[in-house]
Amino acid sequence: MEYIFSDKVQTLKPSAIREIFKYAADPTVVSLSAGNPAPEAFPAKEIADISDKILREEPIAALQYSVTEGYPPLRSAVWDYMRKKYDVGTDADDILITSGAQQIMELFTKSVCNEGDVVICEAPSFIGSLNSFRSFNCRLCGIPMESDGMNLELLEKALKTEKNIRFIYIIANFQNPSGITTSFEKRKAIYELAGKYNVMILEDNPYGELRISGEDVPCIKSLDKDGRVVYAGSFSKVLSPGMRIGFAIAPKPVLQKMIVCKQGEDVHTNSWAQMVAYRFLTEYDFEAHLKKLREIYRKKANFCMELLDKYLVPTGITYEKIQGGLFIWCKLPENAKISMSEFCTKAVQNKVCVVPGNAFLTDESEQSSSFRINFSTPTDEQLEKGIKILGKLAGEVL
Amino acid sequence: MEYIFSDKVQTLKPSAIREIFKYAADPTVVSLSAGNPAPEAFPAKEIADISDKILREEPIAALQYSVTEGYPPLRSAVWDYMRKKYDVGTDADDILITSGAQQIMELFTKSVCNEGDVVICEAPSFIGSLNSFRSFNCRLCGIPMESDGMNLELLEKALKTEKNIRFIYIIANFQNPSGITTSFEKRKAIYELAGKYNVMILEDNPYGELRISGEDVPCIKSLDKDGRVVYAGSFSKVLSPGMRIGFAIAPKPVLQKMIVCKQGEDVHTNSWAQMVAYRFLTEYDFEAHLKKLREIYRKKANFCMELLDKYLVPTGITYEKIQGGLFIWCKLPENAKISMSEFCTKAVQNKVCVVPGNAFLTDESEQSSSFRINFSTPTDEQLEKGIKILGKLAGEVL
Repeated sequence: MEYIFSDKVQTLKPSAIREIFKYAADPTVVSLSAGNPAPEAFPAKEIADISDKILREEPIAALQYSVTEGYPPLRSAVWDYMRKKYDVGTDADDILITSGAQQIMELFTKSVCNEGDVVICEAPSFIGSLNSFRSFNCRLCGIPMESDGMNLELLEKALKTEKNIRFIYIIANFQNPSGITTSFEKRKAIYELAGKYNVMILEDNPYGELRISGEDVPCIKSLDKDGRVVYAGSFSKVLSPGMRIGFAIAPKPVLQKMIVCKQGEDVHTNSWAQMVAYRFLTEYDFEAHLKKLREIYRKKANFCMELLDKYLVPTGITYEKIQGGLFIWCKLPENAKISMSEFCTKAVQNKVCVVPGNAFLTDESEQSSSFRINFSTPTDEQLEKGIKILGKLAGEVL
Repeated sequence: MEYIFSDKVQTLKPSAIREIFKYAADPTVVSLSAGNPAPEAFPAKEIADISDKILREEPIAALQYSVTEGYPPLRSAVWDYMRKKYDVGTDADDILITSGAQQIMELFTKSVCNEGDVVICEAPSFIGSLNSFRSFNCRLCGIPMESDGMNLELLEKALKTEKNIRFIYIIANFQNPSGITTSFEKRKAIYELAGKYNVMILEDNPYGELRISGEDVPCIKSLDKDGRVVYAGSFSKVLSPGMRIGFAIAPKPVLQKMIVCKQGEDVHTNSWAQMVAYRFLTEYDFEAHLKKLREIYRKKANFCMELLDKYLVPTGITYEKIQGGLFIWCKLPENAKISMSEFCTKAVQNKVCVVPGNAFLTDESEQSSSFRINFSTPTDEQLEKGIKILGKLAGEVL
């Protein structure tokens, strides 16, 4: 039969990254295109121990249906952690445990956006979230990034001229893909602009705990006097992405709608994973674990930046130093003889996979002269091999 | 700030069942209102053993990001199982692992329905699915149930007169809440009508393995020569609902859209749960496990029907005998002096919780003279106590 699809998904396609992953699956190709946490960062033994305890001591709780809002002890523990450590959450807010932070993008968009409504995004931004917004037929309006966050003039221009803007989507810490951290001044300014034009903010913070240098910058949500900010947190980078645990801290009326949507979406998040996260957070030294993670990523990031300085920078490719996260954003020189997408294609032919920058734009057909490198997934050997090949290629073709 | 919600979720409210659950949480109330599998039906020890093996032998696979389609060995194992045992799935189909079968309702509706499109449902039907359809602003058209399935004349009338019908939603085995099993003749007729009017079918089969008497009836999906049927399967009732594992077997082009939607919804289903389900299905005697489950539910169902015969039937309340599933549908006599909703309210005041039938209608404001009893969650003692109270109440007020 001939299938009729909804307007929402008519033009939706698998992300460009998935196409690249096909090459990355080839074992002879060095993949610098993933976004997976480093396997050595998983507290695998602790999780096995906790899991064993849970399944022997309280198997029914782990196996039976649970409530949509999330496992109550985990909700409390995360709530306390976020209030004490980051001043995130007020009496007007509540917390919802989700099946990964990705689900927050979905639930919030579903709750507030009609088809054709506008979402303001950083340009470039995280593909997974952009596709989630697109899947409700939202119109994406990208604001170019500067080294300290969105260009505020262009943001205000968009807020002034676009109709039916529902929210601003921002990854303020070590943004994916640009690696940029939005300055405190810009965070305040963005919050004020959102107030002035009466739109909400969706603050996505998957990498916040992975700072390798510099000082923490307060979350936008910690400035939220108006109940304007939905905060999206995640255990994917600090515990395990395969467990799919995220949490939303959001104004109660908004969270209520998101909860009803989640009920119809997956009823509740996997109970076992919620119980493991709860015990890890409360029975183990979580701060010591984070310290260990930061040490792992500091080493990997610094090693990667050394390699870039050694092999790519001499060819004219530039990049912004990062203070955390999993990604580095590299830019071809202005006088490059070939386009970024040609460069990425040649890289794959030379058995190295990076993600072309246009994949992260609100309009993928726009031009970009950047590409994204991930340093958390490859081993040091793979990283060195891959960047060496990129350097040699750049020397030949740029 | 004043929140603006999407048209989709504007009128969406938590299901009536959730309101009832508030009473059910009172430990002095006997709850016959849930839909949880019997805790003794969980293979808790086997799951603990499998989990331990997985987390010691292949922790990274369990903790790392995985692919949206699902854990490949589980996809293959479920595919083989469904083809061999139920003749479900053709070369034109493929399989997607989901976060519970609930997610299939969400992903399929998102993929094929624009706002205002019509979904034809059995009346009564499962609230969770109805709410999922409602959350995309679909219009629900309910077809009254007879003892062997939907009234075919009214189904054809709806197919003829309604505009923009996207699919027929059907729970063919031991339907929730009515307990009704659609006959093979009606399954064939429904499939033919769907072909005649060119609409799809969403066949939801959470209870199919829980037959306690009679013979299996072939799935509608096993008749699917046109690629018209999306089959929704679930591990919630045969393994564990807290693990949130479902699977869709559907025509490839439809599944492709659902996969892209799932990518933006939760990236992939919890990896640990998929790996546990895979090993349970392939390393244990799954058929022996199902046999044990059916024994548990046969006993509980028969005990419940005996109690109904003893305490409720003499008061004029009637019910249809069931051949499987978790629910029994009771009907007040036509000459009852009070309405069903008054009866359910009085029941709660007498410390017994059942679900009023109108909660399962496509329009909750419609009248219903039925209520739903669940026998899988309460203990035998609770069941007896609860039904006794209902009988006494019915004797007094009907």
